[in-house]
Amino acid sequence: MAREEMAQVPAQDVARDASYAPTGRTVLTRARERAAYDHETVHAILDAGYLCHLGYVRDGAPVVLPTLYARAGDRLYLHGSTGSRPMRRAGETGETGHGADPGLPVCVTVTHVDGLVLAKSAFHHSINYRSVVVHGIAHQVIDEDEKTAALDALVDHVLPGRAADSRPGNAKELAATAVIRLDLREVSAKIRTGGPHDEPEDLELPYWSGVVPVAPAYGAPIPSDDLAPGTALPPYLTTR
Amino acid sequence: MAREEMAQVPAQDVARDASYAPTGRTVLTRARERAAYDHETVHAILDAGYLCHLGYVRDGAPVVLPTLYARAGDRLYLHGSTGSRPMRRAGETGETGHGADPGLPVCVTVTHVDGLVLAKSAFHHSINYRSVVVHGIAHQVIDEDEKTAALDALVDHVLPGRAADSRPGNAKELAATAVIRLDLREVSAKIRTGGPHDEPEDLELPYWSGVVPVAPAYGAPIPSDDLAPGTALPPYLTTR
Repeated sequence: MAREEMAQVPAQDVARDASYAPTGRTVLTRARERAAYDHETVHAILDAGYLCHLGYVRDGAPVVLPTLYARAGDRLYLHGSTGSRPMRRAGETGETGHGADPGLPVCVTVTHVDGLVLAKSAFHHSINYRSVVVHGIAHQVIDEDEKTAALDALVDHVLPGRAADSRPGNAKELAATAVIRLDLREVSAKIRTGGPHDEPEDLELPYWSGVVPVAPAYGAPIPSDDLAPGTALPPYLTTR
Repeated sequence: MAREEMAQVPAQDVARDASYAPTGRTVLTRARERAAYDHETVHAILDAGYLCHLGYVRDGAPVVLPTLYARAGDRLYLHGSTGSRPMRRAGETGETGHGADPGLPVCVTVTHVDGLVLAKSAFHHSINYRSVVVHGIAHQVIDEDEKTAALDALVDHVLPGRAADSRPGNAKELAATAVIRLDLREVSAKIRTGGPHDEPEDLELPYWSGVVPVAPAYGAPIPSDDLAPGTALPPYLTTR
């Protein structure tokens, strides 16, 4: 499975317009044909999900936590409570900053698995996927209007239209929620599609080869026990 | 969505037998009722997936990469190529180690999303999920027998039975593949299940509330263009 693995990989020529400029951290060192930096590709991958894996450094060691996110233009918003560690750290006051927020260095990764790729040789097994890796400095969102808009975006990112169809947060709830923002500047996408790449001498082997597609499937909505009688299923749930 | 977020959270009493001892890094600071440390729960979550997010520190900053993994007893094996950065670093020779492998501090996180939780208030929206976070030092697998077994485990972790039903790796392929191992010592699971937890005063509001289940769905296998005629679909694909 070596050639097909999912580690970080190489640059390619991309249009200056509407692309994220590759950096030392986002230039892929291998499988360069799988890299993409254009906004359209990157944003589509980000918008197709709502769960990211947020990485940060704590006491010199890495920490990776599953976290909800939403994209708004060239910015990501990540959700957390005011008590959680990365949220507190993203809002810490710098020693020399006189109240300024130095931010928290993070890496945010979003991955969608699209298929299992079965080759005739064990070595060429792979998976099809789309992933985006974002490096940057996260900051706590303090401004109340931005925070309210970000929380709406987080709800709507999972289910478009839902934010307007629920009771908005009150001042107490807003204070109890932390949101961090991360500008999309140092960003790369990586995509694998298609079937297996077997060695020519393996093609006559009697093993099945091909792709098993995979995608998230949403089941029939299960109403709460305490749902008020007569409450209709909203349109955004009948189409998901 | 504050109370329901997915950040790191608190200890609970667990049986000493067959549990991972909580540490400063794995003791949850919030939502302690969602934590689990017992082997059965942790292993079941790990075995239900094959894609993890591998975090490590590079030049002082976090990096998070999607990576394939398999569990074998109390050990994880992660897959990569010999050229990828974390794999190289996990195998670097320590300055003072006279050839010893100092290993790479990593955090490996596996997350399964089980449902979208819709509450009447925006604040109480959440998702149902199962996640495992593993902290430790990863080492490159050098021993050829262990490496071969680990690669078989990686293939079989995605599709049980597939390793024996493909052409085994040869010496060249084995050399081109890197595997790192991570012992399961500092490990925690976190699980959210069930419906939304709305405020009593919100229950009469006219918004739909409940859970939308979600799970990966596997489509009909798509044969390779170059599949030898008459190659049958193997049983492990008809049952997935």
